[in-house]
Amino acid sequence: MQAEGFLKLTSAQVEARLEALLPTVRTKPTELHEAMRYSAMAPGKRLRPALCVASAEAVGENAPLVLDAACALEMVHVFSLIHDDLPAIDDDELRRGLPTCHMRFGEAIAILAGDALFALAFEVVSKLKAPSDRVVRAISILSSASGSSGLVGGETVDVLSEGKPFDESTVEYIHSRKTGALVSASCEIGGLLGGGTDEQITALKEFGKEVGLAFQIADDLLNELSTADALGKAAGTDRARSKATYPALHGITESREAARQAIDRAFEHIDNIPNADTLVQLARYAIERVH
Amino acid sequence: MQAEGFLKLTSAQVEARLEALLPTVRTKPTELHEAMRYSAMAPGKRLRPALCVASAEAVGENAPLVLDAACALEMVHVFSLIHDDLPAIDDDELRRGLPTCHMRFGEAIAILAGDALFALAFEVVSKLKAPSDRVVRAISILSSASGSSGLVGGETVDVLSEGKPFDESTVEYIHSRKTGALVSASCEIGGLLGGGTDEQITALKEFGKEVGLAFQIADDLLNELSTADALGKAAGTDRARSKATYPALHGITESREAARQAIDRAFEHIDNIPNADTLVQLARYAIERVH
Repeated sequence: MQAEGFLKLTSAQVEARLEALLPTVRTKPTELHEAMRYSAMAPGKRLRPALCVASAEAVGENAPLVLDAACALEMVHVFSLIHDDLPAIDDDELRRGLPTCHMRFGEAIAILAGDALFALAFEVVSKLKAPSDRVVRAISILSSASGSSGLVGGETVDVLSEGKPFDESTVEYIHSRKTGALVSASCEIGGLLGGGTDEQITALKEFGKEVGLAFQIADDLLNELSTADALGKAAGTDRARSKATYPALHGITESREAARQAIDRAFEHIDNIPNADTLVQLARYAIERVH
Repeated sequence: MQAEGFLKLTSAQVEARLEALLPTVRTKPTELHEAMRYSAMAPGKRLRPALCVASAEAVGENAPLVLDAACALEMVHVFSLIHDDLPAIDDDELRRGLPTCHMRFGEAIAILAGDALFALAFEVVSKLKAPSDRVVRAISILSSASGSSGLVGGETVDVLSEGKPFDESTVEYIHSRKTGALVSASCEIGGLLGGGTDEQITALKEFGKEVGLAFQIADDLLNELSTADALGKAAGTDRARSKATYPALHGITESREAARQAIDRAFEHIDNIPNADTLVQLARYAIERVH
């Protein structure tokens, strides 16, 4: 399927399922549940869930349990967005076309809503109707991708490098952790729950790393080139804050080329995956916004 | 064993194991790993780990894997302390006798260190060398106790009720979630990993709820009656912030009695647990500081 169509389909499924998985605002604490829903239900591309579902389909069966895992991945992503947007970190006021969580609900509730979404992600995975050993492995992948050697580690270096001289290795560190880790985990968990072989699961994990890298370069390019209206979040902020990005280091043209090369490497990893058409489309989509 | 001796023994074991489980400061991002270690290794009572280990011993086998689960419970506790202490939430400057994480490392690193400890807790549990179905159940208990219907939910209501009129049900809600949920989960997970029957695991869970309640009442009493020097954190802050606490609602004498009654109810739950001596001592310890 073409990327746009597949993203539209999965995001509708993911949003319907998120609706059911998120705590209702009819139970206490109402404000917390409202904030969790506000951020999780804000319109997003749902790229991570789409990659998870497409990875499962690529190696075999798909099932409702993959959709639940996809929702958990989106919860972790949203948790990281809420915390990254906080005044003490990136201090952003706009996200997915709406005021950020702390602008809408205050800092305390935003911090706690992020925490609660992160907890819920693990709860959702722990309840998957899959063989226990696969569930344990999925939790191991998800927690490791989220922690100090993954997502949170990448965000830390991103924040600490602001306004300081930086080199290729710093940018590589930030990209591979801040975005690469969870995108890669999405593909790996999809492959695992789809019943892939160990070889296929590893291939999907490596594919995801490259797609994550390409996607982050594209995101940095858009931050440089686009407008807040088009992005649904502030533009030009990386340069204003002297963020360690690929375009800042290598310029626009070379960054475009680097994203394309990452996608080429991604394709090599999934050469032997049987039904990888949708994955190929999604990988192309990740960079076509900037080509 | 007497409570003090058992706490001393388990905290030494927990701290040695935490030392190995926490990421080293020799790897990037150094500042994040330093902050995680600073807060996790700060001297604490390690009551949750002790209850976890004692619960495992009460129903049978103990093993290194219980110690790892105990460390994961402490990581979740420390994550919640770091976030609760943040300026946007309780704005505390002192914790366990040291400057709070954000006072020492800044707000951004404190938020991220809390997040990373929370992720690491799930990673540690996912790697326990126990049957997969037990690991999955432990993760389900831990995530649910931490999230919007547990720890984070309790903290939310705690923050939102500051300076407002409150009633018995609000205080009960805060106590049972903010402290009760994780204390109860510590006992339940200990019973589960110790190889307890379903009946024993449920009994330990209910025991933990009452101990958590008693412990929170005692903590609120200490906040009212003690000094910062003795507590290792600021005293008198609950009253200053008009926090919804048991002493504020019922006064000192009745609060002492309520804590004692909770411990009596706790004992009833473990009537049929074979080796519950240490649990009994720990429960008594939880309130003897204020009697």
